[in-house]
Amino acid sequence: MELIWFELSIVLFAALVGYLFSRSIRQPVSIGLIIVGIAIGPSVFSLVDYADVSILAQIGGIILLFLVGLESNFREIYTRKAFQVALAGVAVPFVAGYLTALAFGLDSVSSLFIAAAISATSIGITAAVLKELGKINSETAKLIIGAAVIDDILGLIVLSVVASVPGGLQVAGVALTVIKALVFVIVAILVGDKLLSRLVDFFDYHVIGVHSPKTTFMLAMGLAFAYSFIAEYIGLSAIVGAFLAGVSLARSRNVKLFYAGTEYLEAIFTSIFFVSLGIIVSLSDALAVWPFIIALTVVAALSKIIGCGYVAKRLGFSSGDAKIVGVGMMPRGEVALIIGLYGITLGVITNSVYSAIVFMAFLTTIATPFMLNILYGRERNSLRAQRQTSLPYRNEKKAVSLAAKK
Amino acid sequence: MELIWFELSIVLFAALVGYLFSRSIRQPVSIGLIIVGIAIGPSVFSLVDYADVSILAQIGGIILLFLVGLESNFREIYTRKAFQVALAGVAVPFVAGYLTALAFGLDSVSSLFIAAAISATSIGITAAVLKELGKINSETAKLIIGAAVIDDILGLIVLSVVASVPGGLQVAGVALTVIKALVFVIVAILVGDKLLSRLVDFFDYHVIGVHSPKTTFMLAMGLAFAYSFIAEYIGLSAIVGAFLAGVSLARSRNVKLFYAGTEYLEAIFTSIFFVSLGIIVSLSDALAVWPFIIALTVVAALSKIIGCGYVAKRLGFSSGDAKIVGVGMMPRGEVALIIGLYGITLGVITNSVYSAIVFMAFLTTIATPFMLNILYGRERNSLRAQRQTSLPYRNEKKAVSLAAKK
Repeated sequence: MELIWFELSIVLFAALVGYLFSRSIRQPVSIGLIIVGIAIGPSVFSLVDYADVSILAQIGGIILLFLVGLESNFREIYTRKAFQVALAGVAVPFVAGYLTALAFGLDSVSSLFIAAAISATSIGITAAVLKELGKINSETAKLIIGAAVIDDILGLIVLSVVASVPGGLQVAGVALTVIKALVFVIVAILVGDKLLSRLVDFFDYHVIGVHSPKTTFMLAMGLAFAYSFIAEYIGLSAIVGAFLAGVSLARSRNVKLFYAGTEYLEAIFTSIFFVSLGIIVSLSDALAVWPFIIALTVVAALSKIIGCGYVAKRLGFSSGDAKIVGVGMMPRGEVALIIGLYGITLGVITNSVYSAIVFMAFLTTIATPFMLNILYGRERNSLRAQRQTSLPYRNEKKAVSLAAKK
Repeated sequence: MELIWFELSIVLFAALVGYLFSRSIRQPVSIGLIIVGIAIGPSVFSLVDYADVSILAQIGGIILLFLVGLESNFREIYTRKAFQVALAGVAVPFVAGYLTALAFGLDSVSSLFIAAAISATSIGITAAVLKELGKINSETAKLIIGAAVIDDILGLIVLSVVASVPGGLQVAGVALTVIKALVFVIVAILVGDKLLSRLVDFFDYHVIGVHSPKTTFMLAMGLAFAYSFIAEYIGLSAIVGAFLAGVSLARSRNVKLFYAGTEYLEAIFTSIFFVSLGIIVSLSDALAVWPFIIALTVVAALSKIIGCGYVAKRLGFSSGDAKIVGVGMMPRGEVALIIGLYGITLGVITNSVYSAIVFMAFLTTIATPFMLNILYGRERNSLRAQRQTSLPYRNEKKAVSLAAKK
C-alpha cells in the first residue's frame, strides 16, 4: 500500500519537471510529460508501475476529455465545411495508415489500431501557434479548429469500431457499433444541449441552492462518470462519453464553476494520464522498429496535408491557406495516445506498435510549429505561443475555446 | 472496467443525495454521506463494492487531512493548556474504551483499536455550533479547538502504535513506534514550518513563474503524497503525513491556491471517502452488537466530558465552561472512522467492531449540538450552524480556521 503514495508523488514531481522542461524547450507540455514518464517507467528508472496508477490515469483521460467537451462551442465551429475537411482528414490517414502498417507486416487488427490512431488531429499546438501569429480568428483557423474537433469525435468512433473487431472484421458487428455510436453521439448532443444544462441549472438553483457550488460540481462529475459508463456499456470508449458530457454541460450557467473545478482535477489527474503514457512506452521496443516509426510519421503528415489541404482547396481556400489547413491538422496527440493505450489494454497490439504510435504523435506535433512558421513566413515569433498561459498542457485548448467564442 | 465508472457515478450521485439529506435534517454532511454509503453498499442495494473504490477513498482521506492541516494555524491554537486538555481527552477515553471492549469479551488487539478510535475528537460539529452561538472567539472555544486538533494528532500516533502490535503488545516495538512518530511529527512541523513553505514559494516564484498556479498546486499535492509515503514507511498512517504536509504548507504565500484546488479535489474524493465508510458498514453486524454500541457511545461521551472537563476546571475555567469544554470534545468523526478503516484493512478487527466504531462516531456527533444548546441555554438558534456554508462537510473546519486566524 505505501508504494502507491510513493509512486503518486514521483509521478507528480516528474510531471513538474516535465512541465518546466517543456516550457524551456517551448514545446507542448504533453511532450515533456511523456518524456519524464519514459524516464520513471520501466524503460529507464523503473520507479513506477503502470498497473498501480492505471485507474488514476484513466480518470485523468476522462477529466481531460470532459474539459475539452466543456470548452467546445459546437454551434460556431461545427460547420459543414469543417465537417468535410474532418472527413477527409480521417479517411485519407486511415487508409494510408492501414496500408502502411500492412506493408510493414503487421496483422490486420494492429493495422486497424494504427489506422485509427493516425486519423485524429490534436489541435493544441496548432491553436497555440495560430494564436501567437494573430491568426486565431481567421477563417482558416476556424476551419482547422472545427475540423480538428470533429475528427476527434470521428477518431473516437473509429476506435470504437476498431475495438469491437479484435478477432477480425465482421460487417454486422461494425455496422451495429457505428449505429450505436452515432445514436449515442446524436442523442447525447441533442438531449444534452437542450436539456441537461437546464436540468443541472434547475437542480443547482432550486434544490442545491446558491451557496453550494462544490455540490453542483459533484453533480457534474457524477454525470461525466455516468456518461463514461454508458459509452463503455454500449461499446464506445469511456472518454467519448466524458467528452459528450462536457459538450452537454457547456451551456450550463455553472460552466465556469465546472471549468474551475475540473482544471484543478486536471492539474493532478491529467498529469498522471500523460506521464502514464510515457510509463507504458518501451524504449527498446521503439528503437527496434525505428524504420516503421519514420514511415508512419511521414504517412501521418502527408495524409493530413493532402487530404485536408485538397478539400480546403476545393472549398475555395487559396493554395497557401489550403496548405496551412493541411499542416495545421497534422499533429496527433491525446486521441492517438488514447487509442494506443486502449489497444494495449485490450491486448490486441504489441508494445512495439504502441511505442510507434507514441513516437508518431511526438514527431508530428514537434514538426507542426516549424512548418506553420515557414508557411506564414514569420519564424521569429511563432514559438512563444505557450509561454503566457497558466495551465500546463491545455493552454492551447483555451485558445481554441477563446477563438470559438469570439 | 466499465463497472468502475458506474460505481463512481453512483457514489457521487449518492453523495449529492446525502448532502441534501444532511442539510434538510441539519446534521453534518458526513452523517448523510455515511448513510447513503450504507444504502448503496452490500447492506442494502449492493451497487458498489468497496474494493473497487478503495484507492480513491484513501486519496480522499489524504486530501481531507491535507486540507485540515492547511487550515490549522498551530501557533495560535496549540497552547500548553490545549495540550493538557488534549492529553486528558486521549488518555481517559483510551483507558475507558479499552476496558469497555475487554468487558464485552473482545480480544486485546480489537480492544486497542476501539480504544484508539474512541480517543480522537472531531471538531467539526462543535465548531459549527460555537460559531452559530457567536462563541467561536471565546477562550473556551479556542481551548476546545486547540485540544481537538492536538488530540487528532495524538489519536493518529495512538493508531500507529496500535497498528504496529497486531500480534500483541511488545514494549520495544511500541517504544520504537512512539519515538519514530514523535520524531517525524516534530521534524516535519519544525522543518516544514521554517523551510517548506519558503522553499515552495521560492520554487513557485523563481522556477515555475507567476503564471502557473496549477503547476504549483501539483507541487503541493506531490508533497502531500510524499509525506503520506514517508509516514507509512516509518509506520505511521498515511493521513498523518498528509496532515503534516498541510501544516507545513500552511504558511506558504500560495496557501489560498492550495485551498482552492484541494477543495475541488475534496468535493469529489472526500465524498467518495465518506460514502465508502458507509459502504463498509454491515447493518446486520451492527444490529447484532447493539448493546456494545450503546455502551461504547456512553463511555465515549462520559470519558471526554469527565477527562477534558476536569482538566479545564483545574486550569481555572468555571464549572459551566469546563462542562462546555468536555461536551465540545465529545463528537468523534474522521479519525475514529479512519482508525476503524485501518483496522479492517489490516484484518485485525471484525466488521462488527468496525460497525460499532462507525455508530459510536455517529451517535456522539449527533448528540453534541443538543447538549451544547442546553449548556448555553439557547436551544433555538444552534442547529442552523451548517446552513450558510458552501462546502459539503468541512464547513465546520472553516470555522476553526477562521477562529484561529482572527
